[in-house]
Amino acid sequence: MHSLQKQRSLLFQYLRSSSNSNNIIHNSKMILSSSSSLLLASNFSSTAGKVIPCKAAVAWEAGKPLVIEDVEVAPPQAKEVRINIKYSSLCHTDLYFWESKSVPPIFPRILGHEASGVVESVGDGVSNLKPGDHVLPLFTGECGECPNCKCEDSNMCEVLRINPTREGMISDGKSRFSTIKDKEPISHFLGTSTFSQYTVVHSGSVVKINPTLPLDKACLLSCSISTGIGSILNVAKPKKGASIAIFGLGTVGLAAAEGAKIAGASRIIGIDKNPNKLEYARKFGLTDFVNPEEHERPVHEVLKEMTNGGVDRCIECTGNINALMSAMEALHDGWGVAVLVGVPSGDAVFKTNPFNFLNEKTITGTTFGNYKPKTGLPTLVDMFMNNKLELGKFITHRVPLSEINKAFDYMIKGQGLRTIIDMND
Amino acid sequence: MHSLQKQRSLLFQYLRSSSNSNNIIHNSKMILSSSSSLLLASNFSSTAGKVIPCKAAVAWEAGKPLVIEDVEVAPPQAKEVRINIKYSSLCHTDLYFWESKSVPPIFPRILGHEASGVVESVGDGVSNLKPGDHVLPLFTGECGECPNCKCEDSNMCEVLRINPTREGMISDGKSRFSTIKDKEPISHFLGTSTFSQYTVVHSGSVVKINPTLPLDKACLLSCSISTGIGSILNVAKPKKGASIAIFGLGTVGLAAAEGAKIAGASRIIGIDKNPNKLEYARKFGLTDFVNPEEHERPVHEVLKEMTNGGVDRCIECTGNINALMSAMEALHDGWGVAVLVGVPSGDAVFKTNPFNFLNEKTITGTTFGNYKPKTGLPTLVDMFMNNKLELGKFITHRVPLSEINKAFDYMIKGQGLRTIIDMND
Ligand SMILES: [Zn+2]
Ligand SMILES: [Zn+2]
Ligand SMILES: [Zn+2]
Ligand SMILES: [Zn+2]
Repeated sequence: MHSLQKQRSLLFQYLRSSSNSNNIIHNSKMILSSSSSLLLASNFSSTAGKVIPCKAAVAWEAGKPLVIEDVEVAPPQAKEVRINIKYSSLCHTDLYFWESKSVPPIFPRILGHEASGVVESVGDGVSNLKPGDHVLPLFTGECGECPNCKCEDSNMCEVLRINPTREGMISDGKSRFSTIKDKEPISHFLGTSTFSQYTVVHSGSVVKINPTLPLDKACLLSCSISTGIGSILNVAKPKKGASIAIFGLGTVGLAAAEGAKIAGASRIIGIDKNPNKLEYARKFGLTDFVNPEEHERPVHEVLKEMTNGGVDRCIECTGNINALMSAMEALHDGWGVAVLVGVPSGDAVFKTNPFNFLNEKTITGTTFGNYKPKTGLPTLVDMFMNNKLELGKFITHRVPLSEINKAFDYMIKGQGLRTIIDMND
Repeated sequence: MHSLQKQRSLLFQYLRSSSNSNNIIHNSKMILSSSSSLLLASNFSSTAGKVIPCKAAVAWEAGKPLVIEDVEVAPPQAKEVRINIKYSSLCHTDLYFWESKSVPPIFPRILGHEASGVVESVGDGVSNLKPGDHVLPLFTGECGECPNCKCEDSNMCEVLRINPTREGMISDGKSRFSTIKDKEPISHFLGTSTFSQYTVVHSGSVVKINPTLPLDKACLLSCSISTGIGSILNVAKPKKGASIAIFGLGTVGLAAAEGAKIAGASRIIGIDKNPNKLEYARKFGLTDFVNPEEHERPVHEVLKEMTNGGVDRCIECTGNINALMSAMEALHDGWGVAVLVGVPSGDAVFKTNPFNFLNEKTITGTTFGNYKPKTGLPTLVDMFMNNKLELGKFITHRVPLSEINKAFDYMIKGQGLRTIIDMND
């Protein structure tokens, strides 16, 4: 069986690669090194261009448990890629839109955006991805042509940037998902909708990764880890020896701590109201832990005293607007920089005394740690490949797709860090 | 007379220079090139260590005309310098504290901080300044030892930074000014109090300049011009070809426009509610002028439309908190930076939607354009010396000290730019 599939796969890839004979060598190497991509590529001829029935976790109502449904996933249109999602993990942004406390509710919807998978088929005009490629689907993209893509400081692609209110695909505004039973369309989420075994994503938001990377860990690079590390390396840019305060020791905050270590920070102070986070602060090598509830004074006063006048960099990962305002106060004047990473509620207003600015404090923020998905993220993927970045320690739970609601429970209760959802289990 | 004075001056300087014979050569050169410093140096022996009686414009009450008084100026103590102020100009910050609308009133007080003069005498431990030196007294200083002085990003010296509530000298908290009539002490202002013919300033806040520079223009470098140019070159740091919006076309705003030209901006948009500023926008080479009162829409919408999505850099020079909030809105996402330069009222609160940060906009601010007085400002002084910076065009009025209240009138009415006050007229 395997031998026949290999032949079919090679034939297919040969046809796609047209006159470039190097591709055959490259592809055969890939097949030898990755049995899952082989399986996928071989399946291509039977599913390409057809609707795929599969399981997906559908959010029908705000805050109500997801329901595993039989859904149909339409074929990718021009510039789109259909991906067989292997692993997805739950991120706070999924929770935020699932709860829809301060944003308009959009249901039914397939949530999920931190994931990894294998390309099943591609639509017209997709030249840089092919069936069998191991990929990360991303909630933001890189068209390569717009002013933001051309500006080295920005990753806010004007075409493919994060858009939580978009319900369908960019090309035609339509959904590629529907229930098998009633043919009812189901909304996309962040252009990814990775809580489905198959999803359709714009090709500009799909990043190819080395097929030797373990997909159950690499999925974390598609949101939290990159966001946290990038907030330090690409945005806060502390000097060696700097003091860095991190508000919120979830996965993103602890990833920021990893970034702080890479940047050579001398002091990494974690701030969290959850006393259980002390354990993670220790495990991840933070130098200090502050629980604001254990102090009578405002936390910024505690931080200023700890750091002889103020912290060099503050990274806000909770999304709590009061934490962001504390971060601004906690900065050292003359050079302090605060970076917003967490997503505040939709009606939050940031307030500060403008003399903080005259005292030469700076506040900014970032989406996805300012990594440009296609041209920037590979540097981080390389760090993971070269064992300069450990991802396994961020994974505290694993559940099959059928038990995805457990992942929500863990997150709501603040238990552990990332829960990996095995989409094929 | 002159020959005798020269000899006495040389003798004095020789005694101060002790074993360093180079100093004699240097000093004699200086005397040849600058007759006013000669005069001053010659006066030294008669006034050093003594109280000097002179004229000063005293603010007795908030918002009431200054009164020219006969005052006594005590000798400089350790680390202090007594300066014969030659020219002072009126800055908005003087007006702000004279009005004391949102700050505690401190009167009687000698205002003034944008000035130039000649060192009359120095206190103990002042090694880098000597009688006859042409200097700028500065409202901020550089001790050279504190963390801020040692950080290249900051000019917020922890010892000598701007402190508008300090009424006396740093060393002993006492005033060096008193009325001759009643011996009533008069408060200092920003450590400079340049609306007096003689003033005492901490030596860390005094910058020596080349004696060939015209003092009636160089005085502008001690506040407004450096603040405006530095806000661009040291803080906003636009890329070549950037679009820059400047809120408020007073002297500081127009100096920022000069900085924008030096930085190679392609678009320099001035925003001012005073229609007369259109003339200055043209004269100073701005590419666009927007009067918010001529638009029904908020000014940030006008700016975004003009710049295809947002301005690269906004410089807020009015001190109006609403203008600062508009500046934040007007920025292009992904890379836009707003810089606060104007001084808001003491009770102002800056508010913004935190998604502006997640959209990768940045806001910061600056005091004195981030120039470190002693180690940074000389680069700007050199630009003036080498005719790369024209100061004369910022001067629209000149008044003798006796008519200093006219300078306030011009500023309140928004007439012209800088008024130079001839302190010896
Ligand atoms: Zn996420
Ligand atoms: Zn783009
Ligand atoms: Zn000033
Ligand atoms: Zn200092």
